[in-house]
Amino acid sequence: MLKNDRFLKALLKQPVDKTPVWMMRQAGRYLPEYRETRKKAGGFMDLCMNKELACEVTMQPLERYELDAAILFSDILTIPDAMGLGLYFSTGEGPKFNKPIQNANDVERLAVPDPYDKLAYVMDAVSLIRQELNDRVPLIGFSGSPWTLATYMVEGGSTKEFGKVKGMMYDSPEIMHKLLDTLAKSVIQYLNAQIESGAQAVMVFDTWGGVLTPRDYKDFSLRYLQQIVDGINRTKDGEQIPVVLFSKGAGQWLDLMAETGCDALGVDWTVDLSQARKLVNDKVALQGNMDPCILYASDERVEAEVKNVLASYGKVGNGGHVFNLGHGIHQHIDPSRVKTFIDAVHDHSTQYHN
Amino acid sequence: MLKNDRFLKALLKQPVDKTPVWMMRQAGRYLPEYRETRKKAGGFMDLCMNKELACEVTMQPLERYELDAAILFSDILTIPDAMGLGLYFSTGEGPKFNKPIQNANDVERLAVPDPYDKLAYVMDAVSLIRQELNDRVPLIGFSGSPWTLATYMVEGGSTKEFGKVKGMMYDSPEIMHKLLDTLAKSVIQYLNAQIESGAQAVMVFDTWGGVLTPRDYKDFSLRYLQQIVDGINRTKDGEQIPVVLFSKGAGQWLDLMAETGCDALGVDWTVDLSQARKLVNDKVALQGNMDPCILYASDERVEAEVKNVLASYGKVGNGGHVFNLGHGIHQHIDPSRVKTFIDAVHDHSTQYHN
Repeated sequence: MLKNDRFLKALLKQPVDKTPVWMMRQAGRYLPEYRETRKKAGGFMDLCMNKELACEVTMQPLERYELDAAILFSDILTIPDAMGLGLYFSTGEGPKFNKPIQNANDVERLAVPDPYDKLAYVMDAVSLIRQELNDRVPLIGFSGSPWTLATYMVEGGSTKEFGKVKGMMYDSPEIMHKLLDTLAKSVIQYLNAQIESGAQAVMVFDTWGGVLTPRDYKDFSLRYLQQIVDGINRTKDGEQIPVVLFSKGAGQWLDLMAETGCDALGVDWTVDLSQARKLVNDKVALQGNMDPCILYASDERVEAEVKNVLASYGKVGNGGHVFNLGHGIHQHIDPSRVKTFIDAVHDHSTQYHN
Repeated sequence: MLKNDRFLKALLKQPVDKTPVWMMRQAGRYLPEYRETRKKAGGFMDLCMNKELACEVTMQPLERYELDAAILFSDILTIPDAMGLGLYFSTGEGPKFNKPIQNANDVERLAVPDPYDKLAYVMDAVSLIRQELNDRVPLIGFSGSPWTLATYMVEGGSTKEFGKVKGMMYDSPEIMHKLLDTLAKSVIQYLNAQIESGAQAVMVFDTWGGVLTPRDYKDFSLRYLQQIVDGINRTKDGEQIPVVLFSKGAGQWLDLMAETGCDALGVDWTVDLSQARKLVNDKVALQGNMDPCILYASDERVEAEVKNVLASYGKVGNGGHVFNLGHGIHQHIDPSRVKTFIDAVHDHSTQYHN
């Protein structure tokens, strides 16, 4: 039995004593011990692919902070890599693919990867982390969303303008839908395998859903998130497996996302939690949404902002709130500031629970 | 008298025969003739600072397309450059400053630049362009917003994370307010000088307003946009000078922006125009909002999307609609596609006007 199940309960809108908290990229470059392990591993993907080291970095933030969840250390681009696109990381330029998707033929050739074959390294890491966690806190599994994966696969890496991927979407929507459908099927198998291997909640990162028009978001991102929500095994050994969707920049259409039947939505800092809560009307729990840049300020300012975010969600009642940053923690943040942040969430949140 | 005043009339919500159209960055790298002139000039700022060449590139898109407005060819970072920060352009990395703003002393030392001294090259270009236009269409002047200028000045260039500028904002809000106040005063003098020199409408580009929380947007961006709206000379020689505000990613708070008393709001593609219009309740005209990536698709798709955007705004009635892209045109767009776009706006918009 889990020693700390606040996180899972809050996602399922069940009563908890304090607001649970974790951070996107909590195992990351702001921690000197992470940088040490990363050096040992070699490249970033070497770290992801070595289950012992992936487990080691997953556990590191839990040794420093009273976090209410662990998240698998991995990358959102594991699926396209397993599809044979050749993921590599170019210094200062982020992720790149050797063989980007350029046309209908490239899309036709893509097969749904067997998660226990080319992605076995992820499942091995999940199992090992679960063992190492020893039921201290739950483990979150995750995947990139079909649309977000497609942006990297078609652009061949990061982009500011999304010209190639949107060009394909606008000019050849049938090719784009075929690609997104293959990706949605892959994400379902991948997340179900993570659940089978021990993930106790899963999150889908739709980092680039917010660059679409509202119409195109519905057709090219939300539609495939719906497919994933419908395809995921929502229980394992009698326990519910909560599903969290996070589209960055989606403040205007959180209500549509809540209708997918997911358990919770990630929320970035560009929307007030009070406003977000009104939009979803407690149909789902919310996870967020402090601006990660607050952590550049003083301990006092961080504590004040934690109080602001808690107050913005308000009395939890029939809702559910998991505290998080609105985006991944930045690499230049002082680790001692993070302790202030995590402790402040627990210290100041009891008043919002019954 | 202006031969084509559709653009000014639409901004002021006066009746017009067709929806006026122009494009952000219409004088730019997608045009081969622009690339030729740019080569002659040398660097990008050399082109901005040479009034003949700045005038030449401003006129280029008007020779190809039936545009309803010209926009001054310049950069949003002219003000910080005139303040002595040393603007330069580094290939592939965008704008940079030799002397970024790092602390209270740096902010104290900043003076409001005399627009007729260090920025005289801009005023010279405005006068020459007006002469060259010969009242064919109106000329738009512009400036970066205080918050957007501050992001580049504090970060020393472009950024994805906004860690330095938001760090200053969260940790030393009084220093940030001092910086923004100096910038707002500078923008007012700069835009008033452009109006005095011949600009017939002015636009404030708040490219990075959307990276703020709703609260911080109000305190650190909107407050200074308000100061600018209040400080601009809204008439010249008996003619009204419309003021357009554009905060990218501001779909959720267009109603607050409309309350500043500006004449129109720029709208990006992440909000439906029908929804945006509901929010502002025809208090202001709207300018936008086709996704610039549509121009990578076929002529047929471009034409269909123009119809979608026109229908989304709907019957103009007591409102006002200026057609535009939701962001600047990309450099790899085929110039012939742009003709399809511009002509489609005129061809399909008469039905939306009385």
